[in-house]
Amino acid sequence: MKLVLDYLKQNQGRFVTELCEYLRFASVSAQPQHKKDLLACAQWLVKHCQQIGLDARVCETDGHPIVVAKTKREKNSTKPHFMVYGHYDVQPPEPLELWTSPPFEPRIVGKNLFARGSTDNKGQNFAHLKAVEAYLKTGTPLPCDLTFVIEGEEEVGSKNLSTFLKNNRKELACDTIVVSDTGMPAPKHPALTYALRGIIAFEITLTGPARDLHSGIFGGAVENPAMALSQLLAKVRDEKGVIKIPGFYQGVAALSKYEQAQIKRYPLSDAGLKKLVGSPQLFGEQGFSPLEHRSSRPTFEINGLTSGYQGEGSKTIVPSWARAKITCRLVPNQKPAHVRKIVCAWLKKNCPPTVRMKISAGHGAEAYLVSPTSKPAQAALRALEKAFGTKPILMREGGSIPIVNEFKKVLGADTLLLGLGLPDDNAHSPNEKFNLDCFANGQRMSAFLWQELT
Amino acid sequence: MKLVLDYLKQNQGRFVTELCEYLRFASVSAQPQHKKDLLACAQWLVKHCQQIGLDARVCETDGHPIVVAKTKREKNSTKPHFMVYGHYDVQPPEPLELWTSPPFEPRIVGKNLFARGSTDNKGQNFAHLKAVEAYLKTGTPLPCDLTFVIEGEEEVGSKNLSTFLKNNRKELACDTIVVSDTGMPAPKHPALTYALRGIIAFEITLTGPARDLHSGIFGGAVENPAMALSQLLAKVRDEKGVIKIPGFYQGVAALSKYEQAQIKRYPLSDAGLKKLVGSPQLFGEQGFSPLEHRSSRPTFEINGLTSGYQGEGSKTIVPSWARAKITCRLVPNQKPAHVRKIVCAWLKKNCPPTVRMKISAGHGAEAYLVSPTSKPAQAALRALEKAFGTKPILMREGGSIPIVNEFKKVLGADTLLLGLGLPDDNAHSPNEKFNLDCFANGQRMSAFLWQELT
Repeated sequence: MKLVLDYLKQNQGRFVTELCEYLRFASVSAQPQHKKDLLACAQWLVKHCQQIGLDARVCETDGHPIVVAKTKREKNSTKPHFMVYGHYDVQPPEPLELWTSPPFEPRIVGKNLFARGSTDNKGQNFAHLKAVEAYLKTGTPLPCDLTFVIEGEEEVGSKNLSTFLKNNRKELACDTIVVSDTGMPAPKHPALTYALRGIIAFEITLTGPARDLHSGIFGGAVENPAMALSQLLAKVRDEKGVIKIPGFYQGVAALSKYEQAQIKRYPLSDAGLKKLVGSPQLFGEQGFSPLEHRSSRPTFEINGLTSGYQGEGSKTIVPSWARAKITCRLVPNQKPAHVRKIVCAWLKKNCPPTVRMKISAGHGAEAYLVSPTSKPAQAALRALEKAFGTKPILMREGGSIPIVNEFKKVLGADTLLLGLGLPDDNAHSPNEKFNLDCFANGQRMSAFLWQELT
Repeated sequence: MKLVLDYLKQNQGRFVTELCEYLRFASVSAQPQHKKDLLACAQWLVKHCQQIGLDARVCETDGHPIVVAKTKREKNSTKPHFMVYGHYDVQPPEPLELWTSPPFEPRIVGKNLFARGSTDNKGQNFAHLKAVEAYLKTGTPLPCDLTFVIEGEEEVGSKNLSTFLKNNRKELACDTIVVSDTGMPAPKHPALTYALRGIIAFEITLTGPARDLHSGIFGGAVENPAMALSQLLAKVRDEKGVIKIPGFYQGVAALSKYEQAQIKRYPLSDAGLKKLVGSPQLFGEQGFSPLEHRSSRPTFEINGLTSGYQGEGSKTIVPSWARAKITCRLVPNQKPAHVRKIVCAWLKKNCPPTVRMKISAGHGAEAYLVSPTSKPAQAALRALEKAFGTKPILMREGGSIPIVNEFKKVLGADTLLLGLGLPDDNAHSPNEKFNLDCFANGQRMSAFLWQELT
């Protein structure tokens, strides 16, 4: 292992330069105009994997392509086989004016590398690639076979990955899957995430008048769709932060005592969280702590509002329509299809007859829960401790990685979530960054992991 | 008068061509990038007035310039002096994708001339200019002195016109002011508007987290500003359409029996109105008719909503902020400053402590009410009947012409509102148009008016 660890240490400068190249692709999967950037990014990644010594290819899908890269197999290999999953697509960078420097021109300030996609997820999947490079370039035998699956549609619901998994079930059959796309509480506090929240996404559009109307000539005699939307959304949550849609919390379990104890080890106080987010105060469902709000409680979140005139000055209209983009985070035991059904039914029931409602369904994913006492989880905890030099935290995370349940369903394997993102990494926000210590320690963790897992 | 009327008849084709020239200027006063278009439009207008035979000039202001054009005065003229007010600025044309043809490329279909500003207000003020041209070019003596004041900031609250009136009080002193910037119910139903609604405009911004947050990592533990805004706005109005801000209706008077009778002559049924606006049903304050809702009741209207991600697909964030653009229409006896004060105080009181509120004040104007039995009003009714050949309607209109109260205050003169716009003219909406019969009859009305008023 010394050769591997020394190689990693000696090549950090080059690794960062290569990661910057990777980050320059504006691989925004939600925006059709970036389709060619996603393809270029996938092609770059394949070439890079080949240079490392992997067998790599671009796999076309009905959407953005998937990159598959594998260690060269011995004939009739009986080694264990692990899969590393990541994604090269990124969130939209908007609002651009809030970025200190352009999102696709990586910039290093101290220990931080700023760029869209740096922490979510290019930096994290690149750490695993660099660990394998260290094995291959130093001639150190790997105790396992490895397959990297790096997709381009994670930020839009991974809609073609499932078909891909099914079509390549035999090639991808593996013992455990490793994903670094979650967080760790602080640079010195590595973490194994044993649960994730699920999600449903949808868009509500209320249409009133056939066109924007003069608010003087017509205002007062017709429903204002922006008001109708506000009143509809307002009814969803009460002043205690409780979602009022009947059945929404059905099946949601409280945390066990063991889990409550784990939460207490999490090194971020409520005051620290408040400072981190910058809100005037924290607010969440009554009866639960902020850490529970973020990880083990479901939410109904408005991601965007659009109606009428939004430019400079004023425009005196009754807008023709108003729209809200919504995502609900779900927790274990909540079925996305069922929650979507009851939420949509409630919205339709509560929509006033003065407007027409259209609901467009977006992606959905189940929550995830895996035992932290299983053999692979214990191996991961050892690898984290060796790489970072401190005892790792066991945690639930509030984000969703829709494909993790699909891995279980199609490939039958559990996923180890070994996130390298920090709470202040601004994932999905302007000025996204990745900590270079997390990058380096993440490479070490990956190198140790293949030893510990076998 | 025959010479004048014949001249108008013979020159309609040229008048329409000239109006199209006027409409090609993108004189959008709310949008800073159009500043030069407003200046170019003012200069074109001055040149046109000079060609008609008027003394015309561009008057600089701190904002967009004002055009002043006067009939040449006899020395020590003792003729009555009337002022015609209009505006050459227009509403923003957005959303552009809803226009059938580009907003600043006038297009004639049948009797309709489509272009932004065609009915509001270029077409209407141009009708008055063409009437004067007919007098001057046929050598018919005008029984009065006339001054045209055509400003460039009506759509943004006429903020520099008041100073201009005060600075030119002597030059502008007049007996009556004539404004065609309101509506008439149908091409065969000309109207004198004896009341207008007032307005206050403002913008509410609620800020929660310091930046957009990942809705998985943080969602549930912080207030979502879009939800806070929805809940705040939702409280403003109850299910009966009543504004719940205490004191909002203070001083608002019910319509008199005379006014109720006038309303009944208005040639548009509720079913006709519903069809016109295209809403699934009409909706307004309980206990009042749609015509009252539109003309004699105050409103709280959301003109625009902005928050978070609005592009294609989804972005899983808790937005940092949410904004609503609001205008309230006011009726006689409601003082804009007072209503603004109680509305803002109520909003502040009802804003949750989980977000920070900022309210930006926009323009304001008092409602207007003038006696329909006064001498000038009676003269206007006669001119309308002669021009259109039918008995005119007396009506209140729901829009605001902020400057009308200022005319009363600074110049001491009442204003005759002789609107030429039709209900389906799409003022402030995509596909704004002006009816060419209204244009021609409006010229005739203006020509008769100077006779009837003197």
